[in-house]
Amino acid sequence: MEAEPKPETLLKNKAQTSYPVYTRQEVAKHKTVESGIWVTYKSDVYDITNFVELHPGGDKILLAAGGALEPFWSMYAVHKQKHVFEILEEYKIGELRPEDVQETCDVTDPYRKEPLRHPALKVNSLKPFNAEPPVQILSENYLTPNEIFFIRNHLPVPEVDPKQFRLNIEGEGLKSVQLTLRDIQTKFPKHTITATLQCAGNRRSEMNGVRQVKGLNWGLAAIGNAKWAGAKLSDVLKYAGLPEDIDAKHVQFEGLDKDITGSPYGASIPIRKALAKDGDVLLAYEMNNEPLPRDHGFPLRVIVPGVVGARNVKWLNKIVVSKEESKSHWQVNDYKGFSPSVDWDNVDFNSAPAIQELPIQSVITAPSNDEHLNSDMNEITVKGYAWSGGGREVIRVDVSLDGGQTWRVADLSEVKPNEGQAWAWKLWQLTVPLPKDQKNMEIICKAVDNQYNVQPDTVAPIWNLRGVLNNSWSRVKVTIKSK
Amino acid sequence: MEAEPKPETLLKNKAQTSYPVYTRQEVAKHKTVESGIWVTYKSDVYDITNFVELHPGGDKILLAAGGALEPFWSMYAVHKQKHVFEILEEYKIGELRPEDVQETCDVTDPYRKEPLRHPALKVNSLKPFNAEPPVQILSENYLTPNEIFFIRNHLPVPEVDPKQFRLNIEGEGLKSVQLTLRDIQTKFPKHTITATLQCAGNRRSEMNGVRQVKGLNWGLAAIGNAKWAGAKLSDVLKYAGLPEDIDAKHVQFEGLDKDITGSPYGASIPIRKALAKDGDVLLAYEMNNEPLPRDHGFPLRVIVPGVVGARNVKWLNKIVVSKEESKSHWQVNDYKGFSPSVDWDNVDFNSAPAIQELPIQSVITAPSNDEHLNSDMNEITVKGYAWSGGGREVIRVDVSLDGGQTWRVADLSEVKPNEGQAWAWKLWQLTVPLPKDQKNMEIICKAVDNQYNVQPDTVAPIWNLRGVLNNSWSRVKVTIKSK
Repeated sequence: MEAEPKPETLLKNKAQTSYPVYTRQEVAKHKTVESGIWVTYKSDVYDITNFVELHPGGDKILLAAGGALEPFWSMYAVHKQKHVFEILEEYKIGELRPEDVQETCDVTDPYRKEPLRHPALKVNSLKPFNAEPPVQILSENYLTPNEIFFIRNHLPVPEVDPKQFRLNIEGEGLKSVQLTLRDIQTKFPKHTITATLQCAGNRRSEMNGVRQVKGLNWGLAAIGNAKWAGAKLSDVLKYAGLPEDIDAKHVQFEGLDKDITGSPYGASIPIRKALAKDGDVLLAYEMNNEPLPRDHGFPLRVIVPGVVGARNVKWLNKIVVSKEESKSHWQVNDYKGFSPSVDWDNVDFNSAPAIQELPIQSVITAPSNDEHLNSDMNEITVKGYAWSGGGREVIRVDVSLDGGQTWRVADLSEVKPNEGQAWAWKLWQLTVPLPKDQKNMEIICKAVDNQYNVQPDTVAPIWNLRGVLNNSWSRVKVTIKSK
Repeated sequence: MEAEPKPETLLKNKAQTSYPVYTRQEVAKHKTVESGIWVTYKSDVYDITNFVELHPGGDKILLAAGGALEPFWSMYAVHKQKHVFEILEEYKIGELRPEDVQETCDVTDPYRKEPLRHPALKVNSLKPFNAEPPVQILSENYLTPNEIFFIRNHLPVPEVDPKQFRLNIEGEGLKSVQLTLRDIQTKFPKHTITATLQCAGNRRSEMNGVRQVKGLNWGLAAIGNAKWAGAKLSDVLKYAGLPEDIDAKHVQFEGLDKDITGSPYGASIPIRKALAKDGDVLLAYEMNNEPLPRDHGFPLRVIVPGVVGARNVKWLNKIVVSKEESKSHWQVNDYKGFSPSVDWDNVDFNSAPAIQELPIQSVITAPSNDEHLNSDMNEITVKGYAWSGGGREVIRVDVSLDGGQTWRVADLSEVKPNEGQAWAWKLWQLTVPLPKDQKNMEIICKAVDNQYNVQPDTVAPIWNLRGVLNNSWSRVKVTIKSK
């Protein structure tokens, strides 16, 4: 994490001019282009009328018109950067009356009630909170402990009183139904599955090595495997009266996590997956035999096994059965894959389907990249995880110690899933003699699933502007040194 | 095709010795190790007792004991090679009485009633017949004409009288049922799908470029797309009384094509695929609006869309619902994928699953490899096909004109399948200015399906001893020349 620049310091650089002093009420009158669009930040007043068109986030900036920027910048922490403060300073027109300057920020910070997190997590973004465990820990446990399971939040973690919680179900041909948490726990059979969740951006940092992409700089551990328990979505939809001959194509989900405009996080999955007998889509209230942790969707989240993390909506508030996909930003204008030739000037988000089931993946978790191995060691053990989307079972992991010239077959953890329901990853390892007379090794792994899908050799040809879907061979370079 | 060596010529090279003369009756007494194992070929008699253990095909050789080799060698044309005749000659012990020498071969040749084939087909093997069209023709038609659809026969084409034809259905919890062709055509709704069939060995020749593999040397055209019509397998199984709560896992198929021992071609598919509402498995009697051609299974074959050709059993004779996979050689000991490290000395066919749904594939059909382009041309049009197994839709084909450094997105044929039912290939093309000042180009294509599966960059890391599942990037090298 970069340290957040201190705005005060930056603002102080400006030549000391004498500014008019305004009250909050006066500022509040400037909300339109006609009257001028004014905002405040700390003790200063800015007229940003001419900046509105230049704002990268579009007219969302108008939400702050006539008031303080702090609540919005708290939500979208990307603003707290030097160049943003520099831009803002150009628009300064005055100062607030001292008695009107207050700590807007702290009391309105939507992140002020986030849960405590495990210190081992490597934080990619604090607000919203995004973090992954050290990859070395990841392959130590077949079931990833809740405390170190990667966290991918798009918005502040909502505070939910489980007694007040209601799940709302509506849509095509359904009765509108409200269920309490207790309803969900008692009216429907409890179904348990072990399933791996992976963020579409797992391994994004390797794409940044090719060309810069937009997104959190995930390493190798935006993935985890847990035992989830809850009601089957298909049971709940039947309870809500879903007709047999439904012509809806999608099931939309909305979270209780909301942005500053009140829009919730949202996503949808094909109804085909939701209703498939062996689809195993859950409304989960337990993770590894515990109630869902707040960071993982307490009290209720969707688990869509075999499908990208982004559709496994947390803090579930509403289910809508529909002919249409979710209109959510994250469904329509994000989490899609593109050709390496597509950039932000020519991208057409309508041209690609929303990511759902993910392709075959495998990663080396030990040794680490750039690790120094002792030449006195007789053997080396290479370890990692492998997983494929869509319930496809990983049937083989090949490991190379010579940069892909020759291959050996790794030992896979022995869990035999039902066909089409291989939701969980397999951990693998391979112990081999340490090659003597060699100073460097490039270790590679690549996996194969039961539809014989394989991973591509290199990352550049699957590079894409959002840095998603990196499933190229996992590569680790090590040095062998004498003591 | 290599010309078949003339055995007479080869045999004549042997020093002229005077041999005893035997009748066929005398030869027929030598069928065991105790009496000696004798066989005849043309006018000569051989004692092969000591060769039996050395026979690469195992004890199948005993089927010919006491009789003529011709019927067997007609079935397995691999024997008609110079080195085989040389081995045989070592075992010569006598000659047949002239009146006993007869043209055994022609009358017993199981291939003597094969259908006529289109002269454009490139023959990979005559007996059994295996052939593919020139790849340039392939992408001219969205529906591949029956006459040039690739033919992959494992055994002689059976002659079937459609009036005598009976389909036998049996197995776990079913009534045993016999259906006539007319029953199948009239008792069940006629269902039509357009589906691509691909041989597991398509593009095997590229694997031979890495290291020799075992199998027919298929080029780029062991694939085709056709409109198939027939009864749904699931309807027929229901008719046969398949219970709802079936615990069988497989549906086995047997063809009417049989080897010399009477064993039919066979294969099986998971019952999950057979019964899936949108699985579209057909008992097909029409191909592109015509009755099935003999080479494609007349009068009835299985079409398992999204699944490797080998499971689409032709000349269907029997369906068995079972807890077990088919025990057929082609299911158990063939059509599986292995690591490049596995060779014929260490292969364990039990360690890999039978190929069913195939991975993403795309191929450049024009220009051809090594083609010379005229530098006066302003543009070049690159063409090809793309397809993925399991009903996954091809969503993008990327084309590179510079060996993979940069990519462009090709135009795809506009057929919008239902989700999970993308059985048919997409043809694609891309017209671009011909790069000036360049003498050579490596053109590459790679496709992506709607689960974002991609093709691997190179063929060596997916090389396997049977040469199946080659779905690496398709590459074509061309030269640009001035007139």
